[in-house]
Amino acid sequence: MKKVSYSSLSREAAAELYADLQKTYAEYVARGLRLDMSRGKPAPDQLDICEGLFTAISKNGDVADVSPDVRNYGGIDGIPEMKALFAEILGVSPSEVVIGGNASLTMMFDMVSRSVTHGVMGSTPWCKLPEVKFLCPVPGYDRHFGICECFGIKMIPISMNADGPDMDEVRKYVENDAAVKGIWCVPKYSNPSGITYSDDVVRAFAALNPAAEDFRIFWDNAYCVHDLYDEGDKLLGILDECRKNGKEDMVYIFASTSKISFPGAGVGAMAMSEANIAAAKKVMTYQMIGPDKINQLRHVKYFKNLDGVMAHMKKHAALIGPKFETVLNALDSELSGLDIAEWTAPRGGYFISLDVLPGTAKRVHKLMADAGVVMTGCGATFPYGNDPKDTNLRIAPTYPTVDELKTASELLCLCTKLAALEKIMG
Amino acid sequence: MKKVSYSSLSREAAAELYADLQKTYAEYVARGLRLDMSRGKPAPDQLDICEGLFTAISKNGDVADVSPDVRNYGGIDGIPEMKALFAEILGVSPSEVVIGGNASLTMMFDMVSRSVTHGVMGSTPWCKLPEVKFLCPVPGYDRHFGICECFGIKMIPISMNADGPDMDEVRKYVENDAAVKGIWCVPKYSNPSGITYSDDVVRAFAALNPAAEDFRIFWDNAYCVHDLYDEGDKLLGILDECRKNGKEDMVYIFASTSKISFPGAGVGAMAMSEANIAAAKKVMTYQMIGPDKINQLRHVKYFKNLDGVMAHMKKHAALIGPKFETVLNALDSELSGLDIAEWTAPRGGYFISLDVLPGTAKRVHKLMADAGVVMTGCGATFPYGNDPKDTNLRIAPTYPTVDELKTASELLCLCTKLAALEKIMG
Repeated sequence: MKKVSYSSLSREAAAELYADLQKTYAEYVARGLRLDMSRGKPAPDQLDICEGLFTAISKNGDVADVSPDVRNYGGIDGIPEMKALFAEILGVSPSEVVIGGNASLTMMFDMVSRSVTHGVMGSTPWCKLPEVKFLCPVPGYDRHFGICECFGIKMIPISMNADGPDMDEVRKYVENDAAVKGIWCVPKYSNPSGITYSDDVVRAFAALNPAAEDFRIFWDNAYCVHDLYDEGDKLLGILDECRKNGKEDMVYIFASTSKISFPGAGVGAMAMSEANIAAAKKVMTYQMIGPDKINQLRHVKYFKNLDGVMAHMKKHAALIGPKFETVLNALDSELSGLDIAEWTAPRGGYFISLDVLPGTAKRVHKLMADAGVVMTGCGATFPYGNDPKDTNLRIAPTYPTVDELKTASELLCLCTKLAALEKIMG
Repeated sequence: MKKVSYSSLSREAAAELYADLQKTYAEYVARGLRLDMSRGKPAPDQLDICEGLFTAISKNGDVADVSPDVRNYGGIDGIPEMKALFAEILGVSPSEVVIGGNASLTMMFDMVSRSVTHGVMGSTPWCKLPEVKFLCPVPGYDRHFGICECFGIKMIPISMNADGPDMDEVRKYVENDAAVKGIWCVPKYSNPSGITYSDDVVRAFAALNPAAEDFRIFWDNAYCVHDLYDEGDKLLGILDECRKNGKEDMVYIFASTSKISFPGAGVGAMAMSEANIAAAKKVMTYQMIGPDKINQLRHVKYFKNLDGVMAHMKKHAALIGPKFETVLNALDSELSGLDIAEWTAPRGGYFISLDVLPGTAKRVHKLMADAGVVMTGCGATFPYGNDPKDTNLRIAPTYPTVDELKTASELLCLCTKLAALEKIMG
């Protein structure tokens, strides 16, 4: 059957097609599905492959070769061995790494919280300012936006292109408005679009001349080693690029092993200039004695080095690659050529971003829910939960099984068509 | 040799004694000691007894009986099993417990930080107030005072009696000054005096009528199960006492397994009214997805319940009890009857508090340092590091060996005498 753009359908053809699709939809509803494509979290089989981590330290002798004793107090910024591993992962120097607890999200929140209460390297604490603004490339990660909401930071959406945020927009705000203190970025396999920032975009970030001395790029490299294919996307090292311009204090990098080892019990990290680390530590020293060093050593003993991490990530790719392909195959075969949807085909990360016909995302979401499939909430990928064009849906393919995904993806295509036809027919 | 109060010594007798003691001191100096009585941390043998914790979870099957999966995301306030264990330890209901990461200190800091940025249950954020004050029973815990310093909270010292803080002083401030938002307490085996608050003191806390609606008692029950003897001190349950007065929102309780399992990799917890928990979670939900649940389950599987914890604490007591006794024996045999020092004989906890002749603590500290023994910094047990009478020294007996402690304690008595004689002779 040749595919025809929906916009070129006659009124009668559209109505006929809609009636057909409704019948199919009714069959799905009758099946009483209970599926969930909303959660960007690893499936149980991805957790099972990390079993060896449990016993990477199994007796007192296993901690004896590391000094000071990882079981005791101390080590506010992590053990040297774990800093070395994250330095290798992130392409920075070990002296530019701070190890945290089990979540980079908490490190991001705390970094913003410190800026609110204490300022940044001597700047006015943000709580004393009339207004603080962050730039938010959209669609983006809801928990980044949540941190801004929590502290009453005004969010300004920034358009995303195929190679990263629109840097003209970014430059306009950052270089002219001293209230703009930050920008949220997921530079590799971006959440949710899956794109990786181009070298030009990274260099444009590193060349920014911020109006605010305390402007920082929050560079959440959450998917730094999360390739689906042998040849992964390459991301230019922003700290090095910033340093070339004498602006190494302008960026905070975040990462974690949450989607390498265990989401609930991994190791988070930040990378930044030594001056930024010294500034952060001035407050951190009151907040903590040090994060869990046994878990750090456990990870070091298990993964050993970047090669060990990459070998482990290939096992993840083998498990979730087919899931991404299941969704993408459905989208390609069902929706391509109809001019009612656009989507990304990420080569890594955890999400696929689907833009349905503007004005129909909420309707698609509801049709899915009514048929028993939970999708990420509409608008979650936008500041204040507001998708102005009502077009974006985030697909999280990792948690369901391939069979479940096949069903859910086919239903998603069906709902996208139904909602589009409703819109077109008016 | 009969002991004579130093104040009754003739000038000649004092000078002669001083000369004798100086000779002995010179012998200590000549030994080139390298000892440390400054750190309130467990010794390696205390960490060795917890070896079984490493393998309490050793394979995927070990996490299979707990749902949801502890390896994955989620569980912002901890797993039910860990809440139940801390509820038993603290004598509260599991619904009144929030589990954190590896440190109760971080939970205290974050609680203050949230109050600074967001207020308490709808009160004005403390960063918007002209002044915020905390009461600090002295001597106390330096890291509590550090949190206040970090946020510019004014600290007011409160006298400590043998049964807890002077509640008349506490009441005067709390009930008349709405800028007083908190008080730091270590109610059992207090840091550093080792005393436990009496039932009357606990009831007096629970009966406070604060001028500030957002006044909270920061009840750091760090040594809740840290008895040195079979018959431990008993601490009345403050949350229950507060509830009897309809004031269950007035207290935050903190505790951790840092000195039960591993200081670097234990589990922290807070206990408080469900209303306080709901208020804290409003901000926590932006800061974290959830603390390390695998480590929680590891602790639950290893300790099982309060009986398991108490059996384990007996092993700690067997290791550190003799250390406390070594110090106390030296103080008793060398300093009693001389009227130049007073000290506590704690039945648990991690410290012994020594009050030397007023005006000589810094001198004693320096004499010790010059002979190669590090003591906790003078003034560390007071707000702003200022011991107004220059009298208090904190002894941390757990980390050194018994032999090291014997030497260090004898030297401490010697230095206390030397400094006292210098003072008396003028």
